[in-house]
Amino acid sequence: MSPNSTTVVDIHTHIYPASFVTLLRSRTTVPYIYDPPSGAAPRLIILPSDDEPDRPKGLRGRPLDPSYSSWDLKRSFMQLHDINISVVSLANPWLDFLEEPAEAVAWAKRVNDDLESTCSESNARDHAGQTLRLFAFAVLPLKAHASAIADEIQRIKGLKHFKGVIMGTTGLGTGLDDPDLEPVWAALQKNGMLVFLHPHYGLDVKDFGGKDVVARSGHVLPLAIGFPIETTIAVARMFLAGVFDRHEGLQMLLAHSGGTLPFLAGRIESCVNHEREFKQNGGPTQGPVRSIWDILKTNIYLDAVIYGEVGLKAAIDATKSTDRVLFGTDHPFFPPLNAESEAWPSVTTNYAAIAESVGENTDEATAILGGNALRILGIAI
Amino acid sequence: MSPNSTTVVDIHTHIYPASFVTLLRSRTTVPYIYDPPSGAAPRLIILPSDDEPDRPKGLRGRPLDPSYSSWDLKRSFMQLHDINISVVSLANPWLDFLEEPAEAVAWAKRVNDDLESTCSESNARDHAGQTLRLFAFAVLPLKAHASAIADEIQRIKGLKHFKGVIMGTTGLGTGLDDPDLEPVWAALQKNGMLVFLHPHYGLDVKDFGGKDVVARSGHVLPLAIGFPIETTIAVARMFLAGVFDRHEGLQMLLAHSGGTLPFLAGRIESCVNHEREFKQNGGPTQGPVRSIWDILKTNIYLDAVIYGEVGLKAAIDATKSTDRVLFGTDHPFFPPLNAESEAWPSVTTNYAAIAESVGENTDEATAILGGNALRILGIAI
Repeated sequence: MSPNSTTVVDIHTHIYPASFVTLLRSRTTVPYIYDPPSGAAPRLIILPSDDEPDRPKGLRGRPLDPSYSSWDLKRSFMQLHDINISVVSLANPWLDFLEEPAEAVAWAKRVNDDLESTCSESNARDHAGQTLRLFAFAVLPLKAHASAIADEIQRIKGLKHFKGVIMGTTGLGTGLDDPDLEPVWAALQKNGMLVFLHPHYGLDVKDFGGKDVVARSGHVLPLAIGFPIETTIAVARMFLAGVFDRHEGLQMLLAHSGGTLPFLAGRIESCVNHEREFKQNGGPTQGPVRSIWDILKTNIYLDAVIYGEVGLKAAIDATKSTDRVLFGTDHPFFPPLNAESEAWPSVTTNYAAIAESVGENTDEATAILGGNALRILGIAI
Repeated sequence: MSPNSTTVVDIHTHIYPASFVTLLRSRTTVPYIYDPPSGAAPRLIILPSDDEPDRPKGLRGRPLDPSYSSWDLKRSFMQLHDINISVVSLANPWLDFLEEPAEAVAWAKRVNDDLESTCSESNARDHAGQTLRLFAFAVLPLKAHASAIADEIQRIKGLKHFKGVIMGTTGLGTGLDDPDLEPVWAALQKNGMLVFLHPHYGLDVKDFGGKDVVARSGHVLPLAIGFPIETTIAVARMFLAGVFDRHEGLQMLLAHSGGTLPFLAGRIESCVNHEREFKQNGGPTQGPVRSIWDILKTNIYLDAVIYGEVGLKAAIDATKSTDRVLFGTDHPFFPPLNAESEAWPSVTTNYAAIAESVGENTDEATAILGGNALRILGIAI
């Protein structure tokens, strides 16, 4: 647990707010919420692989746990784990599935306004003397025209509680190296908006040996390996396409300590330096100008959601300082399986990794636990 | 470069020996070697994606560089980089493609005998006063019956220069968690054979955004990310299926510092501990008994082919000592693009990472550079 004198900021914490639940309830294709006529718990079906036609709808996906949407449970969770500030983000898959531009714009506004007013209202309340504050990452209408996306970035910049945006790896549909995203990166950089990059789609099931192999260990392969690799590929594609060369001030926070980027950065750099295709090697096409190590030091922040000292140290080493790594929980996901558990092992593991990596009550620990987030997001305490 | 007093062992160095080149020349489907009638350099086509029907055969794949098959060039490379001992392995895709059991057995014997006699002959020669010794990892006829595979393991155990076997990630065809591999693991453990696990197939091109996205950066995405993830998935599947629980003495050397296993081990462990499917959590199916951290400390060795201090430190941290990390080069791959370069940057980067991680001329450096390999493989100097 954190020392009481430290402000703890949870940078990686999700919610499906009421507005988004309404959106999912209005749908019958993935992602959607299904309310069984029996009155049993609603089901949340967010991945195409969840929507198995040979399974009754009432058994597809997962139960819509109350913790997914409850602000009260978010606050109890914060209190239980000594978290002072949560920067809440919409849980995946955000608005990726809204293909119609006007619809995407309207829902982005509605969800963002929902988040803004909840933060505002919660922060005005008295929490029995405890500091308990909420901020948020906004969602973007990525299927809208670039100018409409830029307008929403501008709009949320004017709201009090937004400290950045959350984004998946598909961008406008084809990935984050899409040239059509250029005005979006420019608008984000111009408005000083941190981009929280988060996975949702994972890897093709064939990479794991097929559906039956995956099923034998539940969600382990897609979650433990598919998710972090999706993030790694997305940011590697941005890097290879020169996005960070063109937008030198772009600031990105990578989920799960960068997926695997800290560990693979050396191999990525070596492969780039050995690639005959790139102009830097006399090849026909332009390769990245700045090195991945330079980008890790200047454009990338990593959350500390990596469940162990080995990974956390690599995250700190890769960004060359403890100033770019930020505590997070991934709440409401990874709850204790044992209902009697008080503190969540998924959270205490991450707390312990920080203490093991940089010591308890050190300046470095204070920075990772909250100081970095306060500085980067400009939150006054 | 290494200090002169240290014995440097290259644990990750490949060759397509003459026997294997003969095999590839005899084929017309992937993998194969194509000799253009023009007399131009032969082409090596080893991946299905190399064999593009819309490209003339003489431009498919890559030129069969002399360094791929030349023992003289292997020895010059060793001399240039102060390497005393190379433990040479057949380059991918080994014999994975030989579906007919008797044919697989015959070619495994022929390639292994080729490697054995070359090592023997080379080690008997005088290299102008320099210590320059060769050992090898054997190849297995994986499409043969388990008893025939076990026979070949037994046979190579009796040959002087084999210190283990090299293996891809497909096993008998469906992955390394295949129950039919059980007698093979048992035979390898019984004979004290180190298993060098190496990638070849990478990830589905769709994971990278498709063929056109990949093409824009040549081999970077498949090599820098596809390869290490393939290794990570393969060993994670073994772990999840309980292979290391049933074969507690099995010793595996993972290519490229374990792919991404050191970095993801914490997340894998957390996902296992949160997986309702597993019996340990009251679920219906058996999960792994030993933790991935325990397996990293007792069953896993990692090469030091990771091109940077961040990754190498994570590899050392994950295995909890400098006793399980071993220097390697990946020769003849990643040669300098600049023909005037003397020492290979891909090698000097890995040498530098060792010095930066554990210091120069330290006991730890000596262990990683060669001491560990000598001990683990039982090589007397």
